[in-house]
Amino acid sequence: MGYADIVVAGIPFDGGVSYRPGSRFGPNHIREASRLLRPYNPALAVAPFERKQVADAGDIAVNPFDIREAIETIQAGAYDLTSSGGRLVTLGGDHTISLPLLRAAAARHGPIALLHFDAHLDTWDTYFGAEYTHGTPFRRAVEEGILDTEALSHVGTRGPLYGKKDLDDDRRFGFGIVTSADVYRQGVDEIVAKLRGRIADRPLYISIDVDVMDPAYAPGTGTPEAGGISSRELLEIIRGFAGLNVIGADVVEVAPAYDHAEITGIAASHLAYDLVSIMSLVPHRTTD
Amino acid sequence: MGYADIVVAGIPFDGGVSYRPGSRFGPNHIREASRLLRPYNPALAVAPFERKQVADAGDIAVNPFDIREAIETIQAGAYDLTSSGGRLVTLGGDHTISLPLLRAAAARHGPIALLHFDAHLDTWDTYFGAEYTHGTPFRRAVEEGILDTEALSHVGTRGPLYGKKDLDDDRRFGFGIVTSADVYRQGVDEIVAKLRGRIADRPLYISIDVDVMDPAYAPGTGTPEAGGISSRELLEIIRGFAGLNVIGADVVEVAPAYDHAEITGIAASHLAYDLVSIMSLVPHRTTD
Amino acid sequence: MGYADIVVAGIPFDGGVSYRPGSRFGPNHIREASRLLRPYNPALAVAPFERKQVADAGDIAVNPFDIREAIETIQAGAYDLTSSGGRLVTLGGDHTISLPLLRAAAARHGPIALLHFDAHLDTWDTYFGAEYTHGTPFRRAVEEGILDTEALSHVGTRGPLYGKKDLDDDRRFGFGIVTSADVYRQGVDEIVAKLRGRIADRPLYISIDVDVMDPAYAPGTGTPEAGGISSRELLEIIRGFAGLNVIGADVVEVAPAYDHAEITGIAASHLAYDLVSIMSLVPHRTTD
Amino acid sequence: MGYADIVVAGIPFDGGVSYRPGSRFGPNHIREASRLLRPYNPALAVAPFERKQVADAGDIAVNPFDIREAIETIQAGAYDLTSSGGRLVTLGGDHTISLPLLRAAAARHGPIALLHFDAHLDTWDTYFGAEYTHGTPFRRAVEEGILDTEALSHVGTRGPLYGKKDLDDDRRFGFGIVTSADVYRQGVDEIVAKLRGRIADRPLYISIDVDVMDPAYAPGTGTPEAGGISSRELLEIIRGFAGLNVIGADVVEVAPAYDHAEITGIAASHLAYDLVSIMSLVPHRTTD
Amino acid sequence: MGYADIVVAGIPFDGGVSYRPGSRFGPNHIREASRLLRPYNPALAVAPFERKQVADAGDIAVNPFDIREAIETIQAGAYDLTSSGGRLVTLGGDHTISLPLLRAAAARHGPIALLHFDAHLDTWDTYFGAEYTHGTPFRRAVEEGILDTEALSHVGTRGPLYGKKDLDDDRRFGFGIVTSADVYRQGVDEIVAKLRGRIADRPLYISIDVDVMDPAYAPGTGTPEAGGISSRELLEIIRGFAGLNVIGADVVEVAPAYDHAEITGIAASHLAYDLVSIMSLVPHRTTD
Amino acid sequence: MGYADIVVAGIPFDGGVSYRPGSRFGPNHIREASRLLRPYNPALAVAPFERKQVADAGDIAVNPFDIREAIETIQAGAYDLTSSGGRLVTLGGDHTISLPLLRAAAARHGPIALLHFDAHLDTWDTYFGAEYTHGTPFRRAVEEGILDTEALSHVGTRGPLYGKKDLDDDRRFGFGIVTSADVYRQGVDEIVAKLRGRIADRPLYISIDVDVMDPAYAPGTGTPEAGGISSRELLEIIRGFAGLNVIGADVVEVAPAYDHAEITGIAASHLAYDLVSIMSLVPHRTTD
Repeated sequence: MGYADIVVAGIPFDGGVSYRPGSRFGPNHIREASRLLRPYNPALAVAPFERKQVADAGDIAVNPFDIREAIETIQAGAYDLTSSGGRLVTLGGDHTISLPLLRAAAARHGPIALLHFDAHLDTWDTYFGAEYTHGTPFRRAVEEGILDTEALSHVGTRGPLYGKKDLDDDRRFGFGIVTSADVYRQGVDEIVAKLRGRIADRPLYISIDVDVMDPAYAPGTGTPEAGGISSRELLEIIRGFAGLNVIGADVVEVAPAYDHAEITGIAASHLAYDLVSIMSLVPHRTTD
Repeated sequence: MGYADIVVAGIPFDGGVSYRPGSRFGPNHIREASRLLRPYNPALAVAPFERKQVADAGDIAVNPFDIREAIETIQAGAYDLTSSGGRLVTLGGDHTISLPLLRAAAARHGPIALLHFDAHLDTWDTYFGAEYTHGTPFRRAVEEGILDTEALSHVGTRGPLYGKKDLDDDRRFGFGIVTSADVYRQGVDEIVAKLRGRIADRPLYISIDVDVMDPAYAPGTGTPEAGGISSRELLEIIRGFAGLNVIGADVVEVAPAYDHAEITGIAASHLAYDLVSIMSLVPHRTTD
Repeated sequence: MGYADIVVAGIPFDGGVSYRPGSRFGPNHIREASRLLRPYNPALAVAPFERKQVADAGDIAVNPFDIREAIETIQAGAYDLTSSGGRLVTLGGDHTISLPLLRAAAARHGPIALLHFDAHLDTWDTYFGAEYTHGTPFRRAVEEGILDTEALSHVGTRGPLYGKKDLDDDRRFGFGIVTSADVYRQGVDEIVAKLRGRIADRPLYISIDVDVMDPAYAPGTGTPEAGGISSRELLEIIRGFAGLNVIGADVVEVAPAYDHAEITGIAASHLAYDLVSIMSLVPHRTTD
Repeated sequence: MGYADIVVAGIPFDGGVSYRPGSRFGPNHIREASRLLRPYNPALAVAPFERKQVADAGDIAVNPFDIREAIETIQAGAYDLTSSGGRLVTLGGDHTISLPLLRAAAARHGPIALLHFDAHLDTWDTYFGAEYTHGTPFRRAVEEGILDTEALSHVGTRGPLYGKKDLDDDRRFGFGIVTSADVYRQGVDEIVAKLRGRIADRPLYISIDVDVMDPAYAPGTGTPEAGGISSRELLEIIRGFAGLNVIGADVVEVAPAYDHAEITGIAASHLAYDLVSIMSLVPHRTTD
Repeated sequence: MGYADIVVAGIPFDGGVSYRPGSRFGPNHIREASRLLRPYNPALAVAPFERKQVADAGDIAVNPFDIREAIETIQAGAYDLTSSGGRLVTLGGDHTISLPLLRAAAARHGPIALLHFDAHLDTWDTYFGAEYTHGTPFRRAVEEGILDTEALSHVGTRGPLYGKKDLDDDRRFGFGIVTSADVYRQGVDEIVAKLRGRIADRPLYISIDVDVMDPAYAPGTGTPEAGGISSRELLEIIRGFAGLNVIGADVVEVAPAYDHAEITGIAASHLAYDLVSIMSLVPHRTTD
Repeated sequence: MGYADIVVAGIPFDGGVSYRPGSRFGPNHIREASRLLRPYNPALAVAPFERKQVADAGDIAVNPFDIREAIETIQAGAYDLTSSGGRLVTLGGDHTISLPLLRAAAARHGPIALLHFDAHLDTWDTYFGAEYTHGTPFRRAVEEGILDTEALSHVGTRGPLYGKKDLDDDRRFGFGIVTSADVYRQGVDEIVAKLRGRIADRPLYISIDVDVMDPAYAPGTGTPEAGGISSRELLEIIRGFAGLNVIGADVVEVAPAYDHAEITGIAASHLAYDLVSIMSLVPHRTTD
């Protein structure tokens, strides 16, 4: 698949989930929900599939019973899929997968900036003694030195934490926080302007946990929290990053068993489509 | 039914649908969901059923197997129902029905202004070679000369298109576009002010595809798109047209099989109620 | 339970419901949906369970077949649970329960200020001749002299009424109204500022009918109305009352049978958590 | 409505329910689900609407907040609807309604034989001190002397009881029991033969609680019990009573909020149709 | 695809449906639900994919807006797919598709025997004047002379008809009827023995409308009827035809929007698997 | 908890699932669905809670991210809970848990007879290289010598296998198979008689995977297969083992996310209740 400029791949893994499982069925669900997508994106005035070679590489098959082995498989698979310089948009699967995806990206680009859309920080340390779960990928990534700590942001966080220390740790790792309430008060355009300033021309990875949206917009997910942003706010923010050097992205935590009328699947497919669209606007191939 | 000032009718037809069918059950579903409606509308300070004679004419029975015959039946039925000057609020059914409804309205009023609430443009040409589907009514209407091309607006559009030509064609037909993102950035009141200025005292038809709302607010529909407006924004915009010469309206594309907890049905029944309310505020009967 | 500073109790009663029943299962549903709550509330920078003694007293068992007896049981139960000065957060159950809860609160604090979040006024007189239903608690409370008529507010109302007289009566009882559309136009912070000014340091009861939220955010309820506020707006408003002397609160009308993916249960559990949080910030115990 | 031979009426009352409420919406749900019914019944070789005058009298409106008043309203309504000798098929509503329906029937026919299809005995004494609930109608009816204690049968019972005394009481009242397991072991035809022998030419009332069917066939009900009979067994048993002097019948406890894909509503509408069919085969009008 | 012995194809068409639409999504839904199928069928002691070449040819794309054109496309497509002697198992789609499938089969084999599993006869004449709908395929097929009228059987029928004439017509066309009640009384093995005797070595087409099963087993369908057979009875009957010369088959009327927990999809995928299995046991290729 | 005669415990673990996850929420779901259970079991004429001390020990907390650690925790927990001779009824959780439960039972009783109700054999070897999953517990148990290979039976199996070798292996381990079709043809009583003869007075463990029931009766499970037995057949078979020396039991694979209207939860709670009932009929305590 290496000849494609942008590669889409699914990772049907949910072994790192702490609450409602089922995102193993996320990739297929998002693909099914993408049947209404059409080739021209008026919000960005771009026809992404004309501008770049885009390919769906199918799913990376992973061991559902062994998290460490799954992480290794994902890392190797992601590295392979980008061997010719393509950029990868991954459909999860739970958030555990972002760690190996970031590793594969950093192996090509060095430490990378991160925009992380989520209700949660995902910088916890361990859970039941486990280091690698859907609540820990970004702490591990910071520890491994694969993130550019000058440009790390959570967007859309809200809801209770274990303690104030969660925030202190997170800040220490270099993260800035834009809460869901901040998006309400400041509006999409102001938020985008601030975040763009921080990221500048760094290689950027965008990770979207669909639970960043309110459960009204994303019921089909594992750890929903009330008070989230809307799908319109999220899509407008993503579109606001057109022009940045987005080198990889994921859309994770879609759990179809809870997804009435495909609401979440449709939002996720639109998000993936807009991620592909802004990637298609990056002037040159990564390896050029 | 001609003696009523405002006539409500259902059209249980979904033969023009390209994706999720089921809006044939829309009329009954909206009526069931209207059981909580009460006679006084505080948002407009009007008791519509006191001010005007309002009647539910039941459903117009149509052939589910033949689109052309169905369109003719609807056109004739709508013309009959308005024979004494009443205004018609139709419950769909899919968006195919707006073409014969506009024809019947234009036969009485001449070319009419159109406010079209929808995620989609619905000005496509053909689909599988078919001229009359739920994606084409307004192109056909422009071609037939029954719309006043000085005052045509889409509100709430979003999502991908087949190509840039879709937009070019649409503009050429005379449509202005207020996207869902525009509603977010400019707010309801500014949008309403602009649209009212354009419409002025023209006879006006309002067509509401419930998919103009985000799937969170309208899961029960056939071609949902993420990033839509809220039910509150939509209702406030509709109320903003009080005082205009609304001569007909429809609420279409309610597909009950996908409608959890009657969310969509309730929104649709409120929309129909507010349409009846603003019609009830029009000073004189159409034929006066 | 009297030794706790804040007591949470469920009231599985829905005998006063006029439309969709089922809120008898609300308390358990909200508790189940609270399993993702954690001890630190970053929005208010407080760890409520560290700051105050908080206890779940379980459910008050009530006769499902006799409304008057149920009301008496609730009043006595609420009075008992607060006998040592604790503040009570109740999980409904339908809105009928607010009357005996207010009686028990007034018996300790005298006439109290009320913030009432709801799509409806709930100041109707009778229904089928019944005085005590989920549509009448606040009219009865005013008649009984247990509310401080200088500081009564509905927030989030919308939708049709029986007649203009509903509004006239309501105003006569002393209520101010902040509609759902007002929240849209003025924004959360302006609304909060106005309401705080009116309440000042009065003992305050907060009653939240989850139907104040749009059906998108709260499908699992008995009398849903389109055009409501979002869960984010509601949570931000509640948080805005930190520092006021909140002496009691309830979250009512959660009907699980209509609650897809626990959307409503999650929102209700977050609301209860934020109510406990702002109560935990009240400097001294009520009886101090 | 008195001129019809067979009258269908709905009773949207569920104030007597002990567990999952919602059968107040049963009548409309059953009617909606009856849209696929056609006029000829091949299982009984009869066209019921040709053979007899059959009318839907709509719903009997009852006070949802006062069980005793509701019972009186139902009794009077049922008596009125049968004033010209018609037979009544009632759509519930919860099982509380069978008591006033039996009273109205006995007022015309004297003590009547009863075939009671249900997972439960419904001969309990009181619940929360209440005498009139959905678990007590047949005990009250025996106490009131309106049943012919020579011909009382439960069919399809199963599941745990409060104690052995429940069975002793039930037997003392004169009931015979055909359990769900008996239907499995003996088969439909043997069961029918035994029951017909016991009933002979007595005036017969048939009361069907849809929970007699397994939850697989009737998920939309208030107190489901595993291990029930199938819809096919139930329909075949009902058809087996053709030729008996059925003077009244009800189908109760359909709770639409739990009814996926209308499974229960469809079964209930078929049951009502077969009840009407066997009534249409009774040679002469009751009053002849 | 002509080189495969057994070809599976989907037909996403539901334009001939009279009630609940949605079977256009049937083929994908059945395929998704087939993910648990494994290669060895112990009920028939056969590994079908080892014994024969089996291929999924994907979907035949059809015009959703023109029934006559759709029928022609299906007929031509089916004929093509069997051009090298393969046998076709089709996944519907609504029952309209059986007519062109039978035409294509008869063009190769001459008049063919038919086993038709369905709640309905599907030998009606017209509906809204339309000759080609999901209620008419077998009447049309008899009229066209493509069925062997010595060996036509409906299995599992039940529910009301328009009139006794429906049965008379049906018998005149040559159909025998095994009702759902017959399956209950006689049992699977006796039914199979009788049907096999009638079919003997004729070329046989098996058409399964999933509504032959009770709605408990097949909620996801368009015209459900209570009192159906179980999935176990249906699978055992199908397996009973091993050894017959099955030259084509279809599984139709799966409507996913009504299919909770994939119940119907799973049953349909098992049915298709057993159809493939009994076809794999036919000794020689059709054209040998 | 050791002082109880019968201990009920939940194990919220689903890390061994190969398809639809979610049985981690099974224990709570079954408990919620048990709210309609009452103390007297008429099918067995026993009041189990009077006859024996029965206690709910709550849940055994397990690591969701490490199967081997989870298995050890379960084994130790089960051993502890039975330290005073009580018998354990476990609510799953996925079928992986049966291995440690059998180990704990065998540690007290020596090799034990097994009645295994399931659609599947669960004697596979490995999956993705993993030895301990929900498809392998009974192979592992045979290999470990903790089962009495003279008395091992699967009941209710059906559906495709990987190959004939699956059956050969299974037979070699000592299992007898009663398929779902056998239950249909032979009937419950004959099946019970044969199985009782084989078990005699051996210590017996009963393991019930709810997928032994048809998806109609148990939609809420992870690997559903069409053609299953009914809840009535299953309950009658279980009751048929009254008098045997049942020393442990489990009810597993209840996945609430797929369980419409609590159908599966209700069936599972009835199964657990009947398991407790037959255990309560065992004359003496295990350690006597």
